Amino acid sequence: MKETFINLIKDVDLTEPIFIEALPGIGHVGKLVAEHMIHELEAEKFAELYSPSFPPQVFVDEDGIIEPMKNEFHYLKSAGEDKRDYIILVGNTQGLSPEGQYDVCGAIIDFVEKYGVKEMFTLGGLGTGQNVEKPKVFGAATTKKRAEMLKDHGVTLRSADGGIIGASGLLLGLGVYRGIEGACLMGETPGYFIDADASKAVLSLLIDILKIDIDIAKLEERAEETRKMISKAQQMEQEMAERMHVAPGEEDLRYIG
Amino acid sequence: MKETFINLIKDVDLTEPIFIEALPGIGHVGKLVAEHMIHELEAEKFAELYSPSFPPQVFVDEDGIIEPMKNEFHYLKSAGEDKRDYIILVGNTQGLSPEGQYDVCGAIIDFVEKYGVKEMFTLGGLGTGQNVEKPKVFGAATTKKRAEMLKDHGVTLRSADGGIIGASGLLLGLGVYRGIEGACLMGETPGYFIDADASKAVLSLLIDILKIDIDIAKLEERAEETRKMISKAQQMEQEMAERMHVAPGEEDLRYIG
Amino acid sequence: MKETFINLIKDVDLTEPIFIEALPGIGHVGKLVAEHMIHELEAEKFAELYSPSFPPQVFVDEDGIIEPMKNEFHYLKSAGEDKRDYIILVGNTQGLSPEGQYDVCGAIIDFVEKYGVKEMFTLGGLGTGQNVEKPKVFGAATTKKRAEMLKDHGVTLRSADGGIIGASGLLLGLGVYRGIEGACLMGETPGYFIDADASKAVLSLLIDILKIDIDIAKLEERAEETRKMISKAQQMEQEMAERMHVAPGEEDLRYIG
Amino acid sequence: MKETFINLIKDVDLTEPIFIEALPGIGHVGKLVAEHMIHELEAEKFAELYSPSFPPQVFVDEDGIIEPMKNEFHYLKSAGEDKRDYIILVGNTQGLSPEGQYDVCGAIIDFVEKYGVKEMFTLGGLGTGQNVEKPKVFGAATTKKRAEMLKDHGVTLRSADGGIIGASGLLLGLGVYRGIEGACLMGETPGYFIDADASKAVLSLLIDILKIDIDIAKLEERAEETRKMISKAQQMEQEMAERMHVAPGEEDLRYIG
Repeated sequence: MKETFINLIKDVDLTEPIFIEALPGIGHVGKLVAEHMIHELEAEKFAELYSPSFPPQVFVDEDGIIEPMKNEFHYLKSAGEDKRDYIILVGNTQGLSPEGQYDVCGAIIDFVEKYGVKEMFTLGGLGTGQNVEKPKVFGAATTKKRAEMLKDHGVTLRSADGGIIGASGLLLGLGVYRGIEGACLMGETPGYFIDADASKAVLSLLIDILKIDIDIAKLEERAEETRKMISKAQQMEQEMAERMHVAPGEEDLRYIG
Repeated sequence: MKETFINLIKDVDLTEPIFIEALPGIGHVGKLVAEHMIHELEAEKFAELYSPSFPPQVFVDEDGIIEPMKNEFHYLKSAGEDKRDYIILVGNTQGLSPEGQYDVCGAIIDFVEKYGVKEMFTLGGLGTGQNVEKPKVFGAATTKKRAEMLKDHGVTLRSADGGIIGASGLLLGLGVYRGIEGACLMGETPGYFIDADASKAVLSLLIDILKIDIDIAKLEERAEETRKMISKAQQMEQEMAERMHVAPGEEDLRYIG
Repeated sequence: MKETFINLIKDVDLTEPIFIEALPGIGHVGKLVAEHMIHELEAEKFAELYSPSFPPQVFVDEDGIIEPMKNEFHYLKSAGEDKRDYIILVGNTQGLSPEGQYDVCGAIIDFVEKYGVKEMFTLGGLGTGQNVEKPKVFGAATTKKRAEMLKDHGVTLRSADGGIIGASGLLLGLGVYRGIEGACLMGETPGYFIDADASKAVLSLLIDILKIDIDIAKLEERAEETRKMISKAQQMEQEMAERMHVAPGEEDLRYIG
Repeated sequence: MKETFINLIKDVDLTEPIFIEALPGIGHVGKLVAEHMIHELEAEKFAELYSPSFPPQVFVDEDGIIEPMKNEFHYLKSAGEDKRDYIILVGNTQGLSPEGQYDVCGAIIDFVEKYGVKEMFTLGGLGTGQNVEKPKVFGAATTKKRAEMLKDHGVTLRSADGGIIGASGLLLGLGVYRGIEGACLMGETPGYFIDADASKAVLSLLIDILKIDIDIAKLEERAEETRKMISKAQQMEQEMAERMHVAPGEEDLRYIG
């Protein structure tokens, strides 16, 4: 296997859909949000991405069933108050090496661009390594106007203290010279596993920005479920990823998404 | 050398052969099983795989003869009670880097697929780091039905505590979206070298599942032989691989295959 | 994204321009010089380079605005006493892996060669790890004649104690077999951040060699500005790069450019 | 620069030349032998190899002159008693990454194969980490017959205690399935720099095997010269390579070539 490829499961017709990325990262924050959206809004999987840039392994679930490494595209028609279409990306891994990240994120951007994506949100957690009373949402955007919009919604704009490493950053960077605007939303989290509180904070904001209607309360249940379901291997994987990608900043903010 | 390539030694005609993989891994468990099968059932080598993804080195045997890094395909016609054909893969190395694993395993799958493979078993050891009284066989499968079958044969289905790293996992993962079903069988082993007991456990199971007729007793001899034959370099190689790939899980189960 | 690419912003016509490279390195020495030249001489950006060999991330500025990783080409017509044209390269990153450096530097050389570049200067800092009273400028050249010229201008020719790692070295190396002559100028610096003194030393020399007219005094202001502007992430990035690339020599001279 | 390439300096016509490889390795043992042969027998450079798999840097000599990373092919017509032709490869670096080694060694084999090479010797040092009274020469070969020949010449055939890592091993391995026979000769050395004694031992043997006529005495002078000439950077490079590639065996034999 030499090339990243996308297996199209269903032909769909979307009009300037909003693209939401939530690949695995700190505290499963983004992933939990996206999985909750997919479930509650009944988004449907229409494509899977496989890549030689993923870790060379498989996961095994509780019943001994093998799960290959993959990213999965879901779509949603006419969601929210303004009846927009959506593409939501989740998965059990990100590209492993730096070049692998470019390879996979490039393939993702190429794919969603074909569906007319002009706007994206990338979701993640921002690990502080400390207990968090009431999680803030940190954010950054590709344009001044969009950054202002985030601020108006209560997002703390990340200032000069850091960058955004991994898919959540890179997808936005690649979007810049494709004419795709975007923003990254990061829920504040200690960085330990399956942080439903940080996810709720991000989801609330997203509901607010996108004017979609989702039951937030059920997210806690989903978090519990996920805690049980994800294999120890996935947890180890994530811990490893965090160790690799994270360098402590002055305020000890950590982010990978 | 920029590309993995396969040197076809003999043209063979096989009908939906079962593919068995046993590249070097923990305790030489899988390799010993496969080499015993090859020897006892008189499987014949028909192809060799070379790859720039292998370690950049050669092994030197006791007589000062150089052995290049390679994987070797053997075939077997009409073995077992149900007269199935087999392809058995052994070798002195696996792909070195993550991308290298995808490269090599991709080439392997492409190759065996051409012979009509629809079913595979990947063999290995699962290192516990502790003494093992009577080695269990752990397993995982790509389908529920096949997992049930393993369970019926006494296999302990691996639960949420881990993934399968390396060729034994990746080949099954790649098989999933090629329509090749499969299972991984891992003999419980302390993880030290050349564990004939773990190999016997795996082989017994395989005999049971595949209904083939092999003298298990002789496996002990082969283990002794292998202990003498494999170079210190190969042992070092393996130790290194283990250190690289293994992260301790909760129950301290370790696997690479 | 699988390939490095250059986005041409403006078509320009240049005659045997001198190429000046100042990608991020120790003490921001070269970058500060180049940015000062670009600003004072009103060089105009005409192309941007993006690469999958860059780190898989983005920077975020004080206002929460996302900045993709990139290298930027500026041009200057008829500068200096002898009315030469110039191409000046700055950026927020270098290629990350060894192969990535070759990939990016190869693309850079290919690009500037098309504009008729026959001569280049690569700028950087040479970290001593110690306080520097009056920074010397160290240098090396691709030809004896050019090395003599540097010496005549007061440059300390680097002797057998080291090599030049990174873009500043590699671009000169790649130039050798393209018939592009060149020299590397490195300002002596403790290696801490934004060393305006080292930059002044390099700039003075460059003014002297190229017979260009620039106000050196203002460079101190620019250093101060840069100190404020560059994100902590960029600083971390640089520190990381230094740790990766630097091995202490006998006289404890360190260089990356 | 994306591809390894070879710059042909001179068209030469050779008949089944013997290929001798001596890229940098432990104790400069092989390199010193090859450079002595090139000088004494007046071999002429006819091709240079450049590669993106080399380290991304340049060396700087005592006079501040930049030296790109490269491998250099020399030829020799009708040398030795049996009037054979030779191709001798030296250089200031090897491929850096595992894949880089395959890339470069593959290009080397492709190149020499075109000149009809059917036989090769790879030269290096075998570091013991201890003082060596009278250096032995260790060796390995691709065929039994050739191994016997080495033994007859007093070579200690390396037994099961190790492999051969790097170009000296890999070239022989690649040769195996191209029908190029070969042997590796490794002079016993503590592993410190510029070991003329180990080089003398290897050269003596080579003179004996190839029936060539060279003044061994002068090799000591050359060693002294080399000690002065090679840059500290090259020494550091080598030390780094040793640290990366060497794992201690039972008898504490170390080899990279």
